[in-house]
Amino acid sequence: MKKLFFLAISLLMSLSTFSQQALGGGQSIVSPEIRDNNTVTFRFLAPKAIKVQLTGDFLPSRKVETSMGIMDAPGIVDMKEGENGLWEYTTPSPLAPELYMYSFIVDGLNVKDPNNVYLIRDVASVTNIFIVGNGVNGLYGVKEVPHGTLARRWYDSPTLKTQRRITVYTPPGYETSKASYPVLYLLHGGGGDEEAWPALGRAAQILDNLIAEGKARPMIVVMPNGHTQNQAAPGESSQGLIKPGMGGGGSSFANADMENSFPDIIKFIESNYRVNKNKANRAIAGLSMGGGHTVRISAMYPNTFDYIGVFSMPPFLRFIGDTDTAFYTKLEEQMRAQKKNGYKLYWMGCGKADFLYQYVQESRKKMDEIGFTYTYRESDGGHIWRNWRIYLSEFVPLLFK
Amino acid sequence: MKKLFFLAISLLMSLSTFSQQALGGGQSIVSPEIRDNNTVTFRFLAPKAIKVQLTGDFLPSRKVETSMGIMDAPGIVDMKEGENGLWEYTTPSPLAPELYMYSFIVDGLNVKDPNNVYLIRDVASVTNIFIVGNGVNGLYGVKEVPHGTLARRWYDSPTLKTQRRITVYTPPGYETSKASYPVLYLLHGGGGDEEAWPALGRAAQILDNLIAEGKARPMIVVMPNGHTQNQAAPGESSQGLIKPGMGGGGSSFANADMENSFPDIIKFIESNYRVNKNKANRAIAGLSMGGGHTVRISAMYPNTFDYIGVFSMPPFLRFIGDTDTAFYTKLEEQMRAQKKNGYKLYWMGCGKADFLYQYVQESRKKMDEIGFTYTYRESDGGHIWRNWRIYLSEFVPLLFK
Repeated sequence: MKKLFFLAISLLMSLSTFSQQALGGGQSIVSPEIRDNNTVTFRFLAPKAIKVQLTGDFLPSRKVETSMGIMDAPGIVDMKEGENGLWEYTTPSPLAPELYMYSFIVDGLNVKDPNNVYLIRDVASVTNIFIVGNGVNGLYGVKEVPHGTLARRWYDSPTLKTQRRITVYTPPGYETSKASYPVLYLLHGGGGDEEAWPALGRAAQILDNLIAEGKARPMIVVMPNGHTQNQAAPGESSQGLIKPGMGGGGSSFANADMENSFPDIIKFIESNYRVNKNKANRAIAGLSMGGGHTVRISAMYPNTFDYIGVFSMPPFLRFIGDTDTAFYTKLEEQMRAQKKNGYKLYWMGCGKADFLYQYVQESRKKMDEIGFTYTYRESDGGHIWRNWRIYLSEFVPLLFK
Repeated sequence: MKKLFFLAISLLMSLSTFSQQALGGGQSIVSPEIRDNNTVTFRFLAPKAIKVQLTGDFLPSRKVETSMGIMDAPGIVDMKEGENGLWEYTTPSPLAPELYMYSFIVDGLNVKDPNNVYLIRDVASVTNIFIVGNGVNGLYGVKEVPHGTLARRWYDSPTLKTQRRITVYTPPGYETSKASYPVLYLLHGGGGDEEAWPALGRAAQILDNLIAEGKARPMIVVMPNGHTQNQAAPGESSQGLIKPGMGGGGSSFANADMENSFPDIIKFIESNYRVNKNKANRAIAGLSMGGGHTVRISAMYPNTFDYIGVFSMPPFLRFIGDTDTAFYTKLEEQMRAQKKNGYKLYWMGCGKADFLYQYVQESRKKMDEIGFTYTYRESDGGHIWRNWRIYLSEFVPLLFK
């Protein structure tokens, strides 16, 4: 009976997925194929195409002329047509462990890989992804370790007079333990939202793996939405399936709403989770715009955080002829107070190729002048998620020690 | 200062997203455009293309010859080229409120809409989606109502000797309330996993909206993974970013592991959530394969569930020359016991075009013979998510009354 039952079900499956495959254009080839030696082959079936190319962030970058000047863009290589219109490209050497992004270009048209269902959105673009060797130090993969919980929920912000969506990671064992936990508030950049660190940042995997290796203390990680004019990530609010932009107009970059309303988030977490409610058990970190938020929030509430992480952002962001000094005078005063109150770690990371690199160096000088101590980590690369995943995985082990 | 600061940040944004846009092929046009009158326009920029078509589940279906005979596939229409290589298609009439799926076909190649970041995976295919009028009865959209929490977590299954991933919806107010809640166990089909009901099924939105309208009682909805040979959805286990298949080999369709291990799930929920632990506060429902699981689990544990929902699945699935009657004899015995013990609702839904339609009718005859009462709902359409979302939204208001 079992065999017949299985046959029946197999037929059922074929029939019910036929329509979906017709819609989605599914193919039955393997792409990308990641070999044991970490070389990767990409395949694409396009018998009618004249030219098929591959673009990806693992290829040597190319210079492109734009209205903003010459800029770096991901490299492009030609794929080779084999039998029956199957195009292929294999990396000439193994790829280092990392999460990579790519697309195909078919006669000039950007096309996703129909054999790879793993896609990530960054602002308004979607690309295929793959992971080699579970990522840097093996931290980005899902491994056979205890897993935390990732919850999408909503909190009330009396300051902003609205409900807002928030992502909360609780570590393995949280639900059955009676213990209280420390909290890391983890902020995204100008193009992100409460889905950015979980998706592009692999935050849950990094935390699960660091905790399993005994390199990080079990902690709660709180990922709010840093655009105060939005209630939630694109597609997750009553605005519907809108086309995402950089912060939906950008007003939240300049106003201080995120800073002013941040106590609502802390209050929500501390009244909804078993947490240790003191400075020694609170950390805050962010990338780019979220790094700016981190600088200002940790300075505005100077006895709140013992651990501060500023990724790819100069604390004193002054450029393009900015002559108004009041903002920086106030920030400097706040940071002097923060210094006086003390903190255990002020960690800054920046890539050598980051377009903000020189501003980070200027800010460091300023911090040295006022005797504001910090740990500085310089990496390769620019203003990209590759760096932010690395910074997170290096920052988290330093917390709550 | 504000203005200058904003300018600086705008530049920052442009620079940091340039690389991503180059990778993802982002375009700056609007597609799809859903007008107030619910007509929809699709746009695609492809100056070099000879022919651009649109395929979608809102277009009249077409007959396709396959190895399994003549089958229905989603319709295809030609798009019209306008100025500068911008191809367009506008629906001739308004679309009914629904969640729709579509792709472009460019010179024979299936291409996603680069102006729409909303994609859903079904088994191994990915398509763009859009929602007209917040879906059927306005239930599929995120509205300005209180929202529940959607948590991805892991439970221990001693029976299967492994950790497994599970999605749990808790209703608005759960975290701050002291109340106990009823539980709906909601099972996916052969092509799904613990992400199917939240994504394709819009389960969280349907529950949020029904609860807000006072049409459903606040309840916990538990969405486990029905493929017992898998720990988690594709990409969410230590298997890595594997290519999804129908249940990873299909063995879990035929064996009884899901049925046998189901008490592990109930035990996990009842020891981790504030729930009412009795038959009157337990419901179970599922689609297709999950409908089969629902029939057998509710019969195997006959004093466990007062509410049973079987979507697009004949309880007595007998076909393709099946001559082994022991399985059905046992099921019939179990259902006779289930009948004796009593239940408040046995709800069955099936589409008129479902390829299982005749088997559902045969099962109904059998059930009538043994006096096993049920509510029967017949809808248009076939073995598709459109029906399963409708069934869920009709079934949930009947629960725990």
